[in-house]
Formats: sequence, structure tokens, C-alpha cells
Amino acid sequence: MRISVPEQVWTGILADLDAEIVVWDGSDAQPDGHLDLVLWPYMARPDAMRDVDPARIGLIQGQSLGYDGVAEALPGGATYANAVGVHEGATAELAIALLLAATRRLGEFRDAQRERVWKKHWSPGLIDRRVLLVGVGGIGGEVVTRLDGFGADVVRVGSTAREGVHGTDELPDLLPDADAVILAVPLTESTTGLVDADFLARLPDTAVVVNVSRGKVVVTDAVAEGGRIGFASDVFDPEPLPSDHPLWSTPNTFITPHVGGMSSSMRNRVEALVRRQVAHLEAGEEPDHVVVRT
Amino acid sequence: MRISVPEQVWTGILADLDAEIVVWDGSDAQPDGHLDLVLWPYMARPDAMRDVDPARIGLIQGQSLGYDGVAEALPGGATYANAVGVHEGATAELAIALLLAATRRLGEFRDAQRERVWKKHWSPGLIDRRVLLVGVGGIGGEVVTRLDGFGADVVRVGSTAREGVHGTDELPDLLPDADAVILAVPLTESTTGLVDADFLARLPDTAVVVNVSRGKVVVTDAVAEGGRIGFASDVFDPEPLPSDHPLWSTPNTFITPHVGGMSSSMRNRVEALVRRQVAHLEAGEEPDHVVVRT
Repeated sequence: MRISVPEQVWTGILADLDAEIVVWDGSDAQPDGHLDLVLWPYMARPDAMRDVDPARIGLIQGQSLGYDGVAEALPGGATYANAVGVHEGATAELAIALLLAATRRLGEFRDAQRERVWKKHWSPGLIDRRVLLVGVGGIGGEVVTRLDGFGADVVRVGSTAREGVHGTDELPDLLPDADAVILAVPLTESTTGLVDADFLARLPDTAVVVNVSRGKVVVTDAVAEGGRIGFASDVFDPEPLPSDHPLWSTPNTFITPHVGGMSSSMRNRVEALVRRQVAHLEAGEEPDHVVVRT
Repeated sequence: MRISVPEQVWTGILADLDAEIVVWDGSDAQPDGHLDLVLWPYMARPDAMRDVDPARIGLIQGQSLGYDGVAEALPGGATYANAVGVHEGATAELAIALLLAATRRLGEFRDAQRERVWKKHWSPGLIDRRVLLVGVGGIGGEVVTRLDGFGADVVRVGSTAREGVHGTDELPDLLPDADAVILAVPLTESTTGLVDADFLARLPDTAVVVNVSRGKVVVTDAVAEGGRIGFASDVFDPEPLPSDHPLWSTPNTFITPHVGGMSSSMRNRVEALVRRQVAHLEAGEEPDHVVVRT
């Protein structure tokens, strides 16, 4: 068993594995010889995968949950697994943090703190409010678990209606009664541009939209030209958000720089995933979470 | 039945009661005649109660949960009830908002937003972390309910040890393993100054203290002189925090201006409480939540 890891620290973490471990972060030439598993760097652009030689790699293990762009970048013959079980909890945690920041107006309090001003104001909060959760996957499930105790009415929306879940085609009717919308969907053709000017126009005053999915799910210009609806987001189109972008100072906007998965809970979970994949490969089994074969 | 309310809006909300409703906010002379119930203004200082004439008041219904200072301020013969069931959820909600703001470092992201800077950094989060909750009353219970889904190990601490609850005398041993401390205690002799320099010194690096109880539970100077331990707080000593106070700019500090109960969930709950108390008085029953008799 021979595996590559993107940073030196992983050689220590995985030292007990019966494997040769080499350090390679994909930015320079692929090591000679065969690699059974390549742990790809976190937050690397898929573009950097264009130069890999899949003939000498068993499995490329990504550290992200989203894999938009991976199939297009990888040369033929590659097998890629995404990082299921690593980021869902931390991303849902940030979603709730952003939801609370928006509904308890923490951004304004922080600004007042910087100006050393004690200025009270009321805020809507979550108690007795309605939260639309768009997305019924892993992150959506972790959001539901965390929202459970907050006294909000959580309404779930998935791509198609089913027991306890509304379909996205019902959104136009659901939005006028929503106090908050959390976006936790993968980026697909049908979710691209989901939140546009019409979507925002249907929401009531003081409503907030929280985005922890992908930037392109929201039409950024529609939000930046607004300001009526609160927008608390970790992902953007474009990303990184350029310093001259109007969204930075759009009223009622709270920005975090795509750090949903960047909590201290990540490393242990990547480690556990790598160990499970290595065990599968050693046993001649199919690895988990293979989402792209080129 | 004759009751007074502190703002005109309440005359409409309670219009259906079989009662004469007068508007009095305690800042000018008490209305002539007897008042069966006085709804005291929210966030008024107890000092303002010195001039009431208890002989002409059945029950003074406060709108706060804390009632430190009330017994000292009220003239003899008064009956005062605190606002149990009104603020616990909203205050616990702000406690979680502050806990998440501190552990996902939202203050730094907000500051970067104002500077239009995209700057990622890691943060500890709550997953697999240990949270000490000091206070087992109404707010503490609501905190537990909300923390339940976050994957943290919640350790409860009360004034005395019991099943599932550590005593405050165990705090020195518990603090070195705590990633966060939430203070949700009433202000009493034994909780005054609970968080002092020694308490802070026992906490590990990157730990945070969240205070939604009363400002005097924390020795403000000990926090302001520190900065090693994060401090996210809604209550302060002194309050309001003067503009020249060093705490405004202490590193790792997040300040909200005593707005724990100021969510849109408050008014409905005060209304329900007033209606229950009026029903008790009409039936000749003892009102609920009487905490001070002078």
C-alpha cells in the first residue's frame, strides 16, 4: 500500500498504517510509481487535477463534499471519492451561526462594538418563526438536528415532494410565509440561480437567506442590488469575493469567506475516512463515496 | 379590575379584558385610585420603584426574569412577580448565538467584511468540544435544549451537586478541560465575582466564556486585562459599558448591549403572563411567580 498526503503533518497522523506515505499536494509533478490512494488537498481548485496521471493512481480521495468541476478536470481513467461525513456537521453549525447572526442582528452589534457604542435594538430571533430548509442531503439533516431545540417551525424543501418534504416547485407559495431560508443544496443545473430577484421579492420584510451550499445557487447581483432581505452567506459567486464587490457593504449582509468546513472537527474525520478507504483497498473492496469515474 | 400598562400599545393588546386600563410607566406620579395589577416597564431600573405607593397596588408584574435590587427599592407592603416564561428561550438563543460567534470567530469575519477583505481562518467550533453550563434554572434548561444537536459534550454545573449536575465547588477541576463556559445563573452573593482572574487562568487557550446572566457574575477588569480567553457577553459591570471602557477593544471579545430578551418572541409571552395573572386576581387566587414581598 502506497499513499500520498498533501501535507507533512499527515505522515505522523497515519504513521501506524502499513503503508509507504509520500507527501504530494498536486501542485508539482506526480511522484514516480503507483499510488493506491491520493489524499487531495482541501480547497484546491479542481483545475489542478488536469495534470494527474490516473493510470498510476488507485483512488483520488477529495477532502470536500461538493465535487462540481471534478469530472470535467480529471483525465480519463480516474476514480474520485468525495468527503462524505467530514464537513456536514461543521457546515450545518456555521449555517446556524449565520442564521442566528442574521436573526439576532449580531453584525450591527459588532459594528457598534468597534465604534464603542452601546446601542440596543430588537431583533426577530427564531422562536415561533418559520425556517425553510432547502436541501435534504447530509448538511440539511445536520441543520435539522441543530435547529430542533430553537422553537422554530422548520419546513423542509427537496428537489421533489415526498413525506414531510415539499418540492422546490412549491417554493413560490412557501416563500411569502418564510422568516428565513437556509440553502443546503448541491450545485446542479436546477439549483443554479435558484435565488434570483423573483425569489427574493416573494420573501417578507425582515426575512433572511442563509447560503452554505455553493455561491452560484444565488444570483449575487440580485442580492447586492437589494438589501431588503438579509443575506448571511459563506459561499459566493464569484469567489473569493473581489474587494470592490458591492456585496461587502450591502445592508443586512453578513459574509464569511467559505469556512463552513474549517473547524477543528475536520482533521479527525478526514483521518477516519482515509483509514476506512485504505481498509477497503487492502481488502480488495470498492471504496466508499466514489462519485466520479472518468 | 383596574390595571396599568407602561405603553399605549398594550391598551390595544389587552382591550378585550374586562378591565379599566390606564397607561403609566412609573416615571411620573402614580395614577389616583387602586390598581389591581401594574405592568412595570421592561428594563426600567429598580430605583424607579422607590416612589410607588404599594397600599394602592395589588401586584407589580415585572417584565424581567432577574429581580436583583427590587426588594431594596420597593417600599413596604408591595408584592412583585418576575417574568418567568418570557425571556428564557430568547436569552438562551442569544447565548447560543454568542457561543457560535465566539467559537466560529464571527467577530473577526465581520471586521474583515467591513474592510472588504476575504481572509479565511480555522476555528474550533462546537463538535466534539466540551461546554460547561453554569446554571440549572430556566435559561440553563433552554440552553441545554438548544445545544442538544451540536455534537458538544455539555457538562452542567449548579450551586450544589446532584444527579447529572456538578456543584460549583467542582469548577476548579472542571475548568482545565472546558472549551467553553456559559454563565446562566442568577446574581447572588455566591455568584458575584464567580469569574475572576483565577477562574480565567484555569481555562485552556482558545476557551471562551459566554455571559447572559448578570454583569457582576464576572470581574470585568479580569477579563479586560486578559484577552487570552474569548469573552462573548450580553451583560456587563458597569452597564451600559462606558465608551472609554477597555473591554470594547479587548481581543477575542464580542459585545451585545443586554438584548437577551429583546426578541420578537417577548410581547406574546408578556401578554400571556398578564392574562394569567389577571385571571388569578379575578378568581381571588395567589398570582404566579411572586418573588418579592416587602
